[in-house]
Amino acid sequence: MVADEELGGDSVKVLPARLGDMIVTEVSAAPVRPNPHGVESKTIYDCEQGQIVHLTIRPGQGLKKHITPVDVAFYVVEGECEVEIGEEKERVGPDTLVESPAGIPHTLRNPGASQLRVLVMKLPRPVEKSVLL
Amino acid sequence: MVADEELGGDSVKVLPARLGDMIVTEVSAAPVRPNPHGVESKTIYDCEQGQIVHLTIRPGQGLKKHITPVDVAFYVVEGECEVEIGEEKERVGPDTLVESPAGIPHTLRNPGASQLRVLVMKLPRPVEKSVLL
Repeated sequence: MVADEELGGDSVKVLPARLGDMIVTEVSAAPVRPNPHGVESKTIYDCEQGQIVHLTIRPGQGLKKHITPVDVAFYVVEGECEVEIGEEKERVGPDTLVESPAGIPHTLRNPGASQLRVLVMKLPRPVEKSVLL
Repeated sequence: MVADEELGGDSVKVLPARLGDMIVTEVSAAPVRPNPHGVESKTIYDCEQGQIVHLTIRPGQGLKKHITPVDVAFYVVEGECEVEIGEEKERVGPDTLVESPAGIPHTLRNPGASQLRVLVMKLPRPVEKSVLL
């Protein structure tokens, strides 16, 4: 074994591989989950350390302003996104990550003419409930 | 306040918003970080709960097989990706999430004719080092 240059070390435990270790989830095949925002929401990763949700937001559509009990990172996959966090508002395009700290009211909106797709990453998975404002 | 239908509750602490709560990171503007795989690697999120790295992998290029001390999720943003985790190998396309458990040797390769872009999400941020095999 050669230690990774950036990370280095050889103290990592190598575990025996088992069939089924690889879990593949296609967004197109993932089930839509009803939600109070009325957007297309698909949970594609759901572990104690984090949850990843794929949202499709139509032009003019947005989330209701809400508070999440954990830190959230948004990654814009496609389209234009207007993000409001606390008193700040910004319009961002594809391949942009926006950090939204726990406990701060925030929302997303699609100000564009085509669909907006966003990955919502909650770290770690919330044990408390989100609150709509 | 109206409780979120799916999550409900109103026990979440609302924190006072401060300027700078919103952190915006564009992949195009993020610095490239040298790495032993020789791919274009940009860390776009780096917190205790998790790290998100954006990789651009050229056709024919791939990562060296390695072990990561935490669970990893790969999200294919663009292109075709050959993922190998333990004994399993699969080719996946855009908008697919692949889970790779901690401690299992794994690698990614671009088998396509155009660039591959992948988000690598490590949950939580590793405190031990990755190991190349």
